[in-house]
Amino acid sequence: MSSTETLTQPPTEDFALLDAYWRAANYLSVGQIYLLDNPLLRKPLLAEHVKPRLLGHWGTTPGLNLLYAHMNRVIKARDLNTLYITGPGHGGPGLVANAYLDGTYSEVYSAIDQDESGMRALFRQFSFPGGIPSHVAPETPGSIHEGGELGYSLVHAYGAVFDNPDLLALCVIGDGEAETGPLAASWHSNKFLDPVRDGAVLPVLHLNGYKIANPTVLARIPEDELAELMRGYGYEPHFVSGDEPFDVHRQLAATLDEVLDTINAIQHNARTGGSPERLAWPMIVLRTPKGWTGPKIVDGLPVEGTWRAHQVPLSETRTNPEHRAQLEAWLRSYHPEDLFDSDGRLIAELQALAPDGARRMSANPHANGGLLLRELVMPDFRDYAVDVDHPATSSSEATRVLGAFLRDIIAANPDSFRLMGPDETMSNRLNAVFEQTDRAWDAQTVPGDDHLAPDGRVMEVLSEHLCQGWLEGYLLTGRHGLFNCYEAFIHIVDSMFNQHAKWLKTTRHIPWRAPIASLNYLLSSHVWRQDNNGFSHQDPGFIDHVINKKAEIVRVYLPPDTNTLLSVADHCLRSRNYVNLIISGKQPALTYLSMDAAIAHCTRGLGIWDWAGNTDGEPDVVLACAGDIPTLEVLAATHLLRQHLPQLKVRVINVVDLMRLEPDSEHPHGLADRDFDALFTTDKPVIFAFHGYPSVIHRLTYRRSGHHNIHVRGYKEEGTTTTPFDMVMLNDLDRFHLVMDVIDRVPSLGSTAAVLRQHMADARFAATAYTREHGEDDPAIADWTWPSAAAGV
Amino acid sequence: MSSTETLTQPPTEDFALLDAYWRAANYLSVGQIYLLDNPLLRKPLLAEHVKPRLLGHWGTTPGLNLLYAHMNRVIKARDLNTLYITGPGHGGPGLVANAYLDGTYSEVYSAIDQDESGMRALFRQFSFPGGIPSHVAPETPGSIHEGGELGYSLVHAYGAVFDNPDLLALCVIGDGEAETGPLAASWHSNKFLDPVRDGAVLPVLHLNGYKIANPTVLARIPEDELAELMRGYGYEPHFVSGDEPFDVHRQLAATLDEVLDTINAIQHNARTGGSPERLAWPMIVLRTPKGWTGPKIVDGLPVEGTWRAHQVPLSETRTNPEHRAQLEAWLRSYHPEDLFDSDGRLIAELQALAPDGARRMSANPHANGGLLLRELVMPDFRDYAVDVDHPATSSSEATRVLGAFLRDIIAANPDSFRLMGPDETMSNRLNAVFEQTDRAWDAQTVPGDDHLAPDGRVMEVLSEHLCQGWLEGYLLTGRHGLFNCYEAFIHIVDSMFNQHAKWLKTTRHIPWRAPIASLNYLLSSHVWRQDNNGFSHQDPGFIDHVINKKAEIVRVYLPPDTNTLLSVADHCLRSRNYVNLIISGKQPALTYLSMDAAIAHCTRGLGIWDWAGNTDGEPDVVLACAGDIPTLEVLAATHLLRQHLPQLKVRVINVVDLMRLEPDSEHPHGLADRDFDALFTTDKPVIFAFHGYPSVIHRLTYRRSGHHNIHVRGYKEEGTTTTPFDMVMLNDLDRFHLVMDVIDRVPSLGSTAAVLRQHMADARFAATAYTREHGEDDPAIADWTWPSAAAGV
Repeated sequence: MSSTETLTQPPTEDFALLDAYWRAANYLSVGQIYLLDNPLLRKPLLAEHVKPRLLGHWGTTPGLNLLYAHMNRVIKARDLNTLYITGPGHGGPGLVANAYLDGTYSEVYSAIDQDESGMRALFRQFSFPGGIPSHVAPETPGSIHEGGELGYSLVHAYGAVFDNPDLLALCVIGDGEAETGPLAASWHSNKFLDPVRDGAVLPVLHLNGYKIANPTVLARIPEDELAELMRGYGYEPHFVSGDEPFDVHRQLAATLDEVLDTINAIQHNARTGGSPERLAWPMIVLRTPKGWTGPKIVDGLPVEGTWRAHQVPLSETRTNPEHRAQLEAWLRSYHPEDLFDSDGRLIAELQALAPDGARRMSANPHANGGLLLRELVMPDFRDYAVDVDHPATSSSEATRVLGAFLRDIIAANPDSFRLMGPDETMSNRLNAVFEQTDRAWDAQTVPGDDHLAPDGRVMEVLSEHLCQGWLEGYLLTGRHGLFNCYEAFIHIVDSMFNQHAKWLKTTRHIPWRAPIASLNYLLSSHVWRQDNNGFSHQDPGFIDHVINKKAEIVRVYLPPDTNTLLSVADHCLRSRNYVNLIISGKQPALTYLSMDAAIAHCTRGLGIWDWAGNTDGEPDVVLACAGDIPTLEVLAATHLLRQHLPQLKVRVINVVDLMRLEPDSEHPHGLADRDFDALFTTDKPVIFAFHGYPSVIHRLTYRRSGHHNIHVRGYKEEGTTTTPFDMVMLNDLDRFHLVMDVIDRVPSLGSTAAVLRQHMADARFAATAYTREHGEDDPAIADWTWPSAAAGV
Repeated sequence: MSSTETLTQPPTEDFALLDAYWRAANYLSVGQIYLLDNPLLRKPLLAEHVKPRLLGHWGTTPGLNLLYAHMNRVIKARDLNTLYITGPGHGGPGLVANAYLDGTYSEVYSAIDQDESGMRALFRQFSFPGGIPSHVAPETPGSIHEGGELGYSLVHAYGAVFDNPDLLALCVIGDGEAETGPLAASWHSNKFLDPVRDGAVLPVLHLNGYKIANPTVLARIPEDELAELMRGYGYEPHFVSGDEPFDVHRQLAATLDEVLDTINAIQHNARTGGSPERLAWPMIVLRTPKGWTGPKIVDGLPVEGTWRAHQVPLSETRTNPEHRAQLEAWLRSYHPEDLFDSDGRLIAELQALAPDGARRMSANPHANGGLLLRELVMPDFRDYAVDVDHPATSSSEATRVLGAFLRDIIAANPDSFRLMGPDETMSNRLNAVFEQTDRAWDAQTVPGDDHLAPDGRVMEVLSEHLCQGWLEGYLLTGRHGLFNCYEAFIHIVDSMFNQHAKWLKTTRHIPWRAPIASLNYLLSSHVWRQDNNGFSHQDPGFIDHVINKKAEIVRVYLPPDTNTLLSVADHCLRSRNYVNLIISGKQPALTYLSMDAAIAHCTRGLGIWDWAGNTDGEPDVVLACAGDIPTLEVLAATHLLRQHLPQLKVRVINVVDLMRLEPDSEHPHGLADRDFDALFTTDKPVIFAFHGYPSVIHRLTYRRSGHHNIHVRGYKEEGTTTTPFDMVMLNDLDRFHLVMDVIDRVPSLGSTAAVLRQHMADARFAATAYTREHGEDDPAIADWTWPSAAAGV
């Protein structure tokens, strides 16, 4: 139904109070951007009442405030449970203003009272040193979304309502944000939403026409075309347009009533077994001027309704009396004297417009998800253990086993755990989950489709942005999950990870924010096994990216085999407020540790593998490894060394928890120098075979006393479509090269070693020749296991 | 016009030859995936004729081949200049097959002749150790697009046709890829295309229905809805659907004729001053079965037309005789004996279907852009120099000056240089470019719009993905450009950078690929000056990301002031086959070097600033800096040290070219150890103030003998909306803290130093107190300049 039709039913309210509430929010928003003092304008505005540095964004704010006021109206009328997701997150003053108006702000920040001095403090703190950020931020009550980096509002909104059947997420999307790729893809989230078990998202595309200095695309295509776009995305658009406040109030109120009726009808129909036909969810296009109600002309140039209103419309209010007079007139145009009583408190008539308690969008517990977080019900991971009688002699597919564990976690937590991935759950061999659940899918199905259902717990879409964003929204509202992804392509969400890690870092210092479940990544199709995809699929750099964030937030695990993966996964899924990065191959691979040994090893995070080395005492050389493929190569190299240079004392160290390598002064998991030195020695050569870029190991260990002895092999950006062993050879990470590295670094091994070194070089040459002739690795290499005689078992 | 209407005009051709050409391409595709030998099936197929490891993707390939054959038809009929952009890049066998059929492959790879032994070699090399990758790759003639990481085909296609008025880019978009964010946003590129000066993109959305294991969203929404989506994106969709080859041939040929007529009409109308009305560009939705013409049933399960056809439909062809028999029947179904002559050469009748010379899509010079590359016409960058009489005493806005240089580059290269940015050209103070050009914009305009025109050289859209993708397409087809972006948000394109860097690395070793212009980034709104945006906008980690790629590809520059920025920009814009990362602030900042000195400094890449230090001989301490803000703080710290500890011998080193820090064994720009040691000493403390994360400096210098003396300050992930000096204090990068660092590391400075240290701690406290009271930095700090007396000038 179009906006014209909507208007044929004129609402009976006059909206005078609602308009006053909107004015109060606008007044408080402008006050935050501009004022140091004189918050109620009881005195003429002087230069010293104005902040010296004006930092904030006015342009989007009146629109955000308008929607807030109207949402308050329908929340009260319908007792709605509503989250407000602010895409244009730089409109921080608006969301703070509304949380202040409804009382939440003073409840969580006792210094910001609802009186004149509180208002002064509210104004002063905004974008002020020692104060609060200019954007909607973790500090802002009611928010799960910063909006500093644009593009993720809609995907967060969907993530929030999954498995929250009674929740409505109002999602304001700026027309700037709408140009981003992630947002453009997010509209299709409606094909993954189950109207029975999930809540509803009401997208409001706010067309104020401009970005920083430019018009926006969606504001400058014909309205018919925009309507087609929205219908093509599966929504029924409703248009609300205008620049006359009461006209817009009438349109918006009527439209909100209509779309909420539609949402109600869709949910009622689905939940009572009505027609299975897929109905179009409603959305609103709100077209109002940028910087609406602000200065129309400044210095002779139009401001309201143009890109000039983006940040601070009047920039010289401290030095230019004309600007200051305009600011004062602007502030007074809201009539603060009618809105706030003599104490500076919102008048009772307006207070009554806000919902109560947890119905306030600023106080909705879903926006502080830790409050709602329930512990995951976890089966005992030990029950999924594979038998390991002798290390490195039998094989298992680590992720396939993990799949069974995840299957049972899904079963035990039917409404609070989801598994995300860009169509790689099967490819990553987590198949067992499909014994328990399906893929979420609410579009058409045809015979032969495999495990598709509206209420599936597995969410697959070929967009890492959507996987990440859905999961973030789901976690931030108090649930649990895991994102499995190709290692190389997790870089697609580097920036989203950054923002989430920054959010977590900040919330740790906000007392009223309760901890949420960690964001867990499982990177399974990793750099070393891109046999059929080649160079474009080879990049282990997400580790580097993750460890740039605060140590208190990030954890990196490289379990070498199946049982260690189970132990690590159990640990990560129980944790809070972290980002856990787990990297583990999906191919059949040797197993090393029984479950008891795996638990002990993971608890320590790293340790000597006595069975692999040949000394209890001081070694001549340390072979260290982190990652499944490097572990295999180190063990094969160790065996070669023990076989050919039995006099050489070798110690083998495996690292599961990468951050153990850092000093304890740098990371909570860091090893004390004394312990590190005891393991790695301070004077013996360490040959370190690493899953990722070698510089990571140097970076983590550069403060260690033995650092100059550490020689790292890892991915050096060489690769193509080839065999697994050719891949490690291309990067000098193979067993033969590791033996050569040892020989090169242990002095005085004598002539046997020189012969062995040549033998190793020959072995590399022969291995290359074999693969080029046969198109596969020499089985003697590919099927290598630890010879039991040498294992001493 | 719908496909039904199209069919009312039955084409007169019978398509038998075209179908045979398609069969030949399909045959060669299957052969590449499966066969080691017996390429023409002149013998029964034996196990040893089949590859031991089957690595490749069949599912998308027949569709790619179908389009290729049909495009050959229209290219010949209309003498079109056409690029073929393959979104589903894993369909490598198809593009290789077509390049082989039209002769290009044998021209560039002489070992792959057009005869039986050449065909054997063609088959064998595919996805084989020492052979070629499984995807469309740099090695594939005719490609500018790998397609391993999905999402960028359409944006590359648009980038390729900008300023190429006669070029047509056929862009095949997989329905998997269509789910990605970047692709979803790319459709709107049509609002940035000028039908007069740019060429045309013909998108073909290939709905084969499935990703790896899942249906695709766009294949499972009603066709009406899909049509609305495309019209909403501004395209007129044409549907071609079927699974009967000749029916599809007829539909597709008629549709291609129709859409090419439409493109012609749009261009003719625009170029002859016809109606200014914005016309909808055509696009095609091609709905054919996944793995079309492959096995229908394997092991009792449907394969053709399902996700099971994604990779290798028959997986046990070496060990399972039934699979092998199916493979043989499949191959023979194309009737190779009718397609290739007794020598194994494509029969002449079919050869005649391919275009000639550079009209072949595999040989189009735009796909090897270096061939078409013209040198940029460059004004002399020295002409834009700012006067610097005394170092660190006057100010300038570096990017504002660069803007004038860019303005004149744009003027001198009106059809081969573009400036990309997500709406930040003004914000980054490159305004001067608008004296010469406009923003590219082909949507509606309204009075008051600022510098919008269809043929603008500045491309602004709020999508880093589009900026990056357009520029990549533009560079790969032989043109030049610069991408200016907020530093934090360049992470949005981390993964796109990866793929481009990998492409460049690979092309360096392909003799027939001519070098292209470098990809240049200018990060101007950087981590240290996010005054009004705060923590979400603070991330200098793109440096870390970039330097993980091959040293032969990547360059990182941190010019400290205006003249050094000009010199660096000139160098980067002239370079080839690199990724150049330039980081430079946009705020007024001190200038240090006259143009002559700047050129000398940039040529060396780093050097001692004698005027700042107080010794020509061996120093007691080295203060090093990289980045504009760290340079300012180091100089202010140096001045404090010289004032309060005049006996301390201080050397100041500024680093512009970051990779100079690495050993010359690691990077072509690396300093020899001897030179590094001479600059930084091997035994004196080095306090290094760095723009980014401190670990970068440790990583680059860990092999240097004096590394254990290098103490780095940089961004440690602390920040919010605050003043510039508060930002550096939050991260211990401020002048006062640097002085404290020096005192802590130079032994036996005595009691004066102890007093000074306390004085510095007090100064930090006072500076914090000042900003919290006044909301701005103490002018004594903010307006600091080098006192001329101390400068000894």
